[in-house]
Amino acid sequence: MGASMSDRYEAFVEEAAALLGPRGFTRDPELVGPWLTDWRGRYTGRAIGLASPDSTIQVSEFVQLCVRHRVPIVPQGGNSGMSGGATPDESGNAVVLSLRRMNRFRHFDPSEGQITCDAGVVLQTLHEEAEKHGLRFPLTLGGKGSATIGGLISTNAGGTQVLRHGTMRNQVLGLEAVLADGTILDTLTPLKKDNRGFELKQLLIGSEGTLGIVTGATLRLLPQTGGRIVAWVGLPTLQHARQLLLHVEAATGDTLEGFEVLPDHSLRAVLDHLPDARAPLAGTHSWNALFELVGRPGEEAQLRELAEDVLADAMERGLIDDATIAANETQAEAFWLIRDSIAPAERAIGPAMQHDISVPVARMADFVEHASPAVEQKFPGTRAVAFGHLGDGNVHFHVLAPASAVRGEWEAVEGKKISAFVHDLVTDWDGSISAEHGIGQMKRDELGRLGDPAALSVMRAVKQALDPSGLLNPGKLVPLAKEGGTA
Amino acid sequence: MGASMSDRYEAFVEEAAALLGPRGFTRDPELVGPWLTDWRGRYTGRAIGLASPDSTIQVSEFVQLCVRHRVPIVPQGGNSGMSGGATPDESGNAVVLSLRRMNRFRHFDPSEGQITCDAGVVLQTLHEEAEKHGLRFPLTLGGKGSATIGGLISTNAGGTQVLRHGTMRNQVLGLEAVLADGTILDTLTPLKKDNRGFELKQLLIGSEGTLGIVTGATLRLLPQTGGRIVAWVGLPTLQHARQLLLHVEAATGDTLEGFEVLPDHSLRAVLDHLPDARAPLAGTHSWNALFELVGRPGEEAQLRELAEDVLADAMERGLIDDATIAANETQAEAFWLIRDSIAPAERAIGPAMQHDISVPVARMADFVEHASPAVEQKFPGTRAVAFGHLGDGNVHFHVLAPASAVRGEWEAVEGKKISAFVHDLVTDWDGSISAEHGIGQMKRDELGRLGDPAALSVMRAVKQALDPSGLLNPGKLVPLAKEGGTA
Repeated sequence: MGASMSDRYEAFVEEAAALLGPRGFTRDPELVGPWLTDWRGRYTGRAIGLASPDSTIQVSEFVQLCVRHRVPIVPQGGNSGMSGGATPDESGNAVVLSLRRMNRFRHFDPSEGQITCDAGVVLQTLHEEAEKHGLRFPLTLGGKGSATIGGLISTNAGGTQVLRHGTMRNQVLGLEAVLADGTILDTLTPLKKDNRGFELKQLLIGSEGTLGIVTGATLRLLPQTGGRIVAWVGLPTLQHARQLLLHVEAATGDTLEGFEVLPDHSLRAVLDHLPDARAPLAGTHSWNALFELVGRPGEEAQLRELAEDVLADAMERGLIDDATIAANETQAEAFWLIRDSIAPAERAIGPAMQHDISVPVARMADFVEHASPAVEQKFPGTRAVAFGHLGDGNVHFHVLAPASAVRGEWEAVEGKKISAFVHDLVTDWDGSISAEHGIGQMKRDELGRLGDPAALSVMRAVKQALDPSGLLNPGKLVPLAKEGGTA
Repeated sequence: MGASMSDRYEAFVEEAAALLGPRGFTRDPELVGPWLTDWRGRYTGRAIGLASPDSTIQVSEFVQLCVRHRVPIVPQGGNSGMSGGATPDESGNAVVLSLRRMNRFRHFDPSEGQITCDAGVVLQTLHEEAEKHGLRFPLTLGGKGSATIGGLISTNAGGTQVLRHGTMRNQVLGLEAVLADGTILDTLTPLKKDNRGFELKQLLIGSEGTLGIVTGATLRLLPQTGGRIVAWVGLPTLQHARQLLLHVEAATGDTLEGFEVLPDHSLRAVLDHLPDARAPLAGTHSWNALFELVGRPGEEAQLRELAEDVLADAMERGLIDDATIAANETQAEAFWLIRDSIAPAERAIGPAMQHDISVPVARMADFVEHASPAVEQKFPGTRAVAFGHLGDGNVHFHVLAPASAVRGEWEAVEGKKISAFVHDLVTDWDGSISAEHGIGQMKRDELGRLGDPAALSVMRAVKQALDPSGLLNPGKLVPLAKEGGTA
């Protein structure tokens, strides 16, 4: 937004203002500024301005305007992404396209269990709307107060209910998106069965705004559930947690909604960090597991009995050291609060490199047992901590800095080496360097370095085909072709 | 396979024979002939020969050979598709690439509920393999004795369990495919969560061999179920069936595995056609519904009670006229046999145009009530019969010829007009002209005529990007651009 840009973009800015009106387009640094830095504070960029169209037609017209002026577009929802996918680069030659003004519910038929809404609807608002009609939307995550439906779709967001209900990809019945030439692709009317060619909807989901801009969606809703049963378990090793997971899955079928693990180190960090928190179990256990069962209304007593039987049986077989079932909803909340507070608690201790990784579920325990000492040995003074969604084969693998480390400096130098080391390990184990947080700008180069060349080549070809001018979210997700490479 | 071709393809044939060996490549008309006509006998083509590689590497090398000689490839599994997608055209310039020799199980870990196999494994064989280990593969259909996993994936096949378990798209955890340049794309190691860019696996599923050749897959398996409860219901109208569906869904949750409807006309046709078949209910009902509940082992008595309560309640509310629950597995089989015999029974009556269509589930009853008289009025002497998967919003909409019609002639002239009329109607109702049978060569022109221009344009761009030479299954699925069009 420097003066030097004024001339170059004058015509574009004038037309954008005329098209979108004063609420729809601004260059005011105070209004634009907050959206130029990602919420974790890792990336800060610059932009010509902030466009906030209020309809799909306006998005389409604005994209056509950008095409005419060759202005790159950075689509943005709640700006709560984890990988810098919605933050412009430092060139200042792009425009941020916010979908937040598009926040209407378009059509809601509770009897169908479907809702159609604008991309800018906030997740929390969707939850509340569904609840009003005795339904629920089966995806939730920490940023639900700001994350938008469009952003969740574009990043294929996960959360703590993926084990049972899948990621955002599974919740989308229909999609509306504006493509790179301004064309509107509309698949909002959901057909349960439709076999008319390529699955374009799924291609757009998770494409991080590089193939199209999501403007609306039809989402599935589920009936509200009965009360939940939340159990906390102490275990000697992560291998035991894996065995417990298989045992619980076999016994509880699809009432198992989530299965999380955390090492003693993470539990202690939370107890230090949250003065009111209490350890769910007496004594110290190397590992803890937290799982939740959710059934139909009225099934709660039956589920509690089932959980008690499962745990008693696991104890008898020597799978677990100790266990407790939350006596009521308050205690259940307290258990989950511990799990949800690990990231801030670890952060309070000192700098750490965070890795959102997955390997095949069956191999996760082996991976952690192998990777943790490997990292700590290679980088003396560090500590590797893995916690999270064991049921999905997805852990957050954090490497804590040595006590002497200086934040910022350590992350930029030593931290980078650590991440490369962890990503190499994950790749060797047939895993993913991004289980749920996406690629964005943060992991694009790592994806280029470690991704399957065949997959990268197809991704580049599809990107080139659908966005030949490269104006949709440049610098994100799709790795550049290697120099001298054939891809 | 005429003599005139020998010269033109001599070099290609020689190299193919050297690469694949005598079992892997043949031009013998007796061996090739059966694979040049689709099983419904609608299409017959010609081919240079039949290639049957026995490994993914061989498929890759053979594709590279075809690229060098610019020979189009028609991939084929069990040759049991419904839309001519695996039949070559009449030019004789293509080669049929059969995956049937690739029929090995590669990796099976029952505790993970996953199996990895070659594309040529037959569905029935997969069912048997899963059952041996106390598991089941939750997709089945009439052609299970010949349909291969690769073909089911390439056509995104459906069947009678889609209501609960989804189409083939939902069963595929990982995929291996050979792309148009011979590159092998391997995503066989399934990660429950993987957010590294475009969902290429889903792009390939349902692409009918036009973007790549599926050579292997990792599939999900489910625990075996307890006994099933199968109910037969008599209803006054299709609207009542729709109300019953909502009622049953609300009461039985996800134990509802299938919900089918058939009009009295179809029931009578089956009773005439199968001498041993008996009507499940006394009296005549304009519509019949057939639904199945499947729970965990040991839940059968509980499910039966649930079904009895649901039906008694539906009767009290006036939703249904009469109902019966199959007393045992033999009777359950007999109910399903009626449903599965409609197509052959109708065929025995005389010529008919068959349409595999879907509209939004909530509108299906309205659609049938509108479309049936509209067709019969427009084409005097015809009779419209709709039956099938009401729970999926997918019916098979058959239009029976007048008694005077001459098979062959009627289908080619009057039948074509009827299909266009039905497809127009479906499109007006936001529906699909192919709910589960795919596009193939049969519906490609209709898709071009009625498809959303934005979606068609993206499909063409993706096809061009991934198969620039157009050698993968030409003439199938992807409609040609309209002359003078910009797409």
